[in-house]
Amino acid sequence: MVTPLLSISRRTRQTPFSKRLGENGVKAYTVYNHMLLPTVFESLEADCRHLKTDVQVWDVACERQIEVRGPDAARLLQMLTPRNLGKMAFGQCLYTPMVDETGGMLNDPVTLKLADDRYWVSIADSDLLLWIKGLAYGLGLRVEVDEPDVSPLAIQGPKSDDLAARVFGEAVRDIGFFRFAVLEFQGHDLMVSRSGYSKQGGFEIYVDGGHLGEPLWDALFAAGKDLNVRAGGPNLIERIEAGLLSYGNDMTRQNTPYECGLGKFCHNQNDIEFVGRDALLRHAAEGPARQIRSLAIAGEALPPCRSAWPVYGNGQRAGQVTSATWSADFQTNVAIGMIEQAHWQDGARLEVETPDGMRSTTVKEKSFI
Amino acid sequence: MVTPLLSISRRTRQTPFSKRLGENGVKAYTVYNHMLLPTVFESLEADCRHLKTDVQVWDVACERQIEVRGPDAARLLQMLTPRNLGKMAFGQCLYTPMVDETGGMLNDPVTLKLADDRYWVSIADSDLLLWIKGLAYGLGLRVEVDEPDVSPLAIQGPKSDDLAARVFGEAVRDIGFFRFAVLEFQGHDLMVSRSGYSKQGGFEIYVDGGHLGEPLWDALFAAGKDLNVRAGGPNLIERIEAGLLSYGNDMTRQNTPYECGLGKFCHNQNDIEFVGRDALLRHAAEGPARQIRSLAIAGEALPPCRSAWPVYGNGQRAGQVTSATWSADFQTNVAIGMIEQAHWQDGARLEVETPDGMRSTTVKEKSFI
Repeated sequence: MVTPLLSISRRTRQTPFSKRLGENGVKAYTVYNHMLLPTVFESLEADCRHLKTDVQVWDVACERQIEVRGPDAARLLQMLTPRNLGKMAFGQCLYTPMVDETGGMLNDPVTLKLADDRYWVSIADSDLLLWIKGLAYGLGLRVEVDEPDVSPLAIQGPKSDDLAARVFGEAVRDIGFFRFAVLEFQGHDLMVSRSGYSKQGGFEIYVDGGHLGEPLWDALFAAGKDLNVRAGGPNLIERIEAGLLSYGNDMTRQNTPYECGLGKFCHNQNDIEFVGRDALLRHAAEGPARQIRSLAIAGEALPPCRSAWPVYGNGQRAGQVTSATWSADFQTNVAIGMIEQAHWQDGARLEVETPDGMRSTTVKEKSFI
Repeated sequence: MVTPLLSISRRTRQTPFSKRLGENGVKAYTVYNHMLLPTVFESLEADCRHLKTDVQVWDVACERQIEVRGPDAARLLQMLTPRNLGKMAFGQCLYTPMVDETGGMLNDPVTLKLADDRYWVSIADSDLLLWIKGLAYGLGLRVEVDEPDVSPLAIQGPKSDDLAARVFGEAVRDIGFFRFAVLEFQGHDLMVSRSGYSKQGGFEIYVDGGHLGEPLWDALFAAGKDLNVRAGGPNLIERIEAGLLSYGNDMTRQNTPYECGLGKFCHNQNDIEFVGRDALLRHAAEGPARQIRSLAIAGEALPPCRSAWPVYGNGQRAGQVTSATWSADFQTNVAIGMIEQAHWQDGARLEVETPDGMRSTTVKEKSFI
C-alpha cells in the first residue's frame, strides 16, 4: 500500500496551531483523539536528527484534557487507576495507567492535580471521557466531566531549556521532571510541565484557550531563531529507540499494565479502591505471560508496521511486533513488541514475519536510548 | 492547507478489505473509530456519479459493532437511548440516538437485536464501548460488553438488489428497509440488512470473521462485472445532498437529538428509563433553539469544510455550516448546518463566512435528494 492522502473534515479536528504547521511544511498527519497530529515534516530521519541536536515545537493539541471537578473528583480519579494518588500534590504530573474491570488498559494518560477537587487527565488515543462519564453516572458521583479548550504545545530537544527560558523566564529551569509550574505568557497564566513524548528533554505547555495558540507559537519561533528551532511532532524513530509506548499500537484493552511493563505503577496492595483491583491482584500474583520488549530486526529497512507482525521462537508463536522503523543511528530496524515469557530474556534470538518476509530479531531488555 | 498524507500504523487499524482497496485504486482515507475508511477512488465527483447509476462495494468495517449480552442487556440498551426499544424484534435494525445525562449526543448508531439477551450496536465515530462499559460497571449490571470481529461491507447503488441476489440468492429482495436476514455465504451464516449511508439503496453485510472479507469481496466483484461494480465508500457529495448526518461533523456532544432533527426517535413520554430523560423532557417542552438544516451556498466550488463556518442573518450570528461540497447535479455548493430558530425557515437567505470569503446561502427544509 502506498501512502494515501488524508481527507480532513470537522470531525478530524484542526488545532490552534494547524495554520502554522502548514506554513512550516507539514507533509503527513495521523488522527489522534479525533484530531490532527503531525507525523512528518522534512522526513522521519531528518526530523529525528534535528530533534536530537536542536529544539522543536510540537503541536500535540491532540493530547486532549479531560477535566474532572467536584467533591467526588479525587475519589473518582483514584477509581480509574491502580496507581496510588493518595499523596498527589498540586504541581505533580503522574503517569497513570487506566484499566477496566478486568485490568485491561483503556488509556495511559498523565494526570495533573489542579486542586483538591479539580484534575486534568491528559489522554492518549481513546475516548476516555466516555468511560469516566459512564462510571460517574453509574456510581452517582458528584462530579462534572468535560473537555476544556486546552491544547498542549511541546518544546522538545536538547535546547529546550534555553528556548523555554527566553519565553517564560529562567524559572522554567527549576521545574522538576513531571512537575508543572504556572508561568506567565502575555498576561495569561499557563501551566508548563517538564515532560513530553521523547527522551530529548523538554516541556509541555497547556495552552488554555485556542486564541493563545498562534501568539505562543510565534513567540517561540521568534525567540528560537538562533537555536535553529523547527516545527516537529512525536518522531516514530526516536520514540521506538526510546521504548516509549503508544496506546493503540503497542498496547490495547487486551493488555494489562504488567504486560506493558507498567507494574511499578500498580499499587494493588495498598488500601486504595479502583476498578479492576481484583483482576490485577490475581494477575500480579501469577505474573504476566507476555511483556513489552524492545527488539532489533536484522536486514534492510522494513516497510511501515501497519498491523501486528507475528514473532516465532523455535517454530512456536512467541509474540508480535507492533511498532518498527529504520534507525540510522543504530543501523538496524528498531521495534517494540509483546513477547511471551519463554522468549523475553535479553538477547533472545527470534524470527519475525514482516511484509518483506521472515527476519531475524533480537530481544533487548532495555530500550535503545 | 493542501491535502496531506496519512501515516498509517496499527493504531489506525486496517480492515479485512484494505488489500482489495489498494488494488482498486483508493486515493484517500479518513480515520473513523481508529480504523481506515476510504473516501476517494477516482474523484469525489466521478465516484458520486457512479454510485447514482451503478453499484458499489464499500469497506465500512469502521462501523464497529459493540456486542452487549447477558441477562441485563435489554435493560442496559434501553438506558442508552430515548428511543423506545420495548417492542424491538429479532431482525430489526433501529436507528438509535444515544445521549448522556444532559441529553447531549454521544453517538447515533444502529442497534440490532440478535436475541433477547444479545444486541449489536453499530457505531458512528466515538468510543461508545467505553460509555457502555462505564455505565454497566457503575450500575452493577449483569452484561458483557466487547467488540467482536465483525466488519460491515456495504453494497450501495441502484443495482444493489441485482448484485446481492447473485451472491446471497433471491431472498435478499424480500428484506425490508432496516431489517436484516441471515443468509448463507460459502457455508457461513451472515447477517444482511437493507441499510447503508446513502440514499441510492442497498445492503450492509455484517462480515462475522475477518477471514471472510476477501472471499466475499471477490465473489461480489466476480458476480457484478456486467453491472459495472466498483469499489467505493460513503461519498461526501451524495451524503450531503441526501442530508445524512455525520457524528463529529454535523452533531457533537454539544447537540441534543432535537437539534439534530431526531426528535421523532425520542419517546420521553413513554414509560421507559434512559439516561438523560429529565434533560430531554425539559428540552422537548421548550423546543430546540437551533436545528439541522440543508443549505445551498451560492458561487463557485468552495474548498473543503474543515471547521465550522459561521453563518449570519441580518448581521447577527445565525448558526454554522459543518459540511459542504460542490454538487455537479445541483450546480451549487450543498451544505449541512445548525441554524438558529429565527433563521431556520425554508428559503431564508443568510450569509456564511467561508475560507473564500462571505457567500450568500439559502436554507432548505428538505434535503436535496
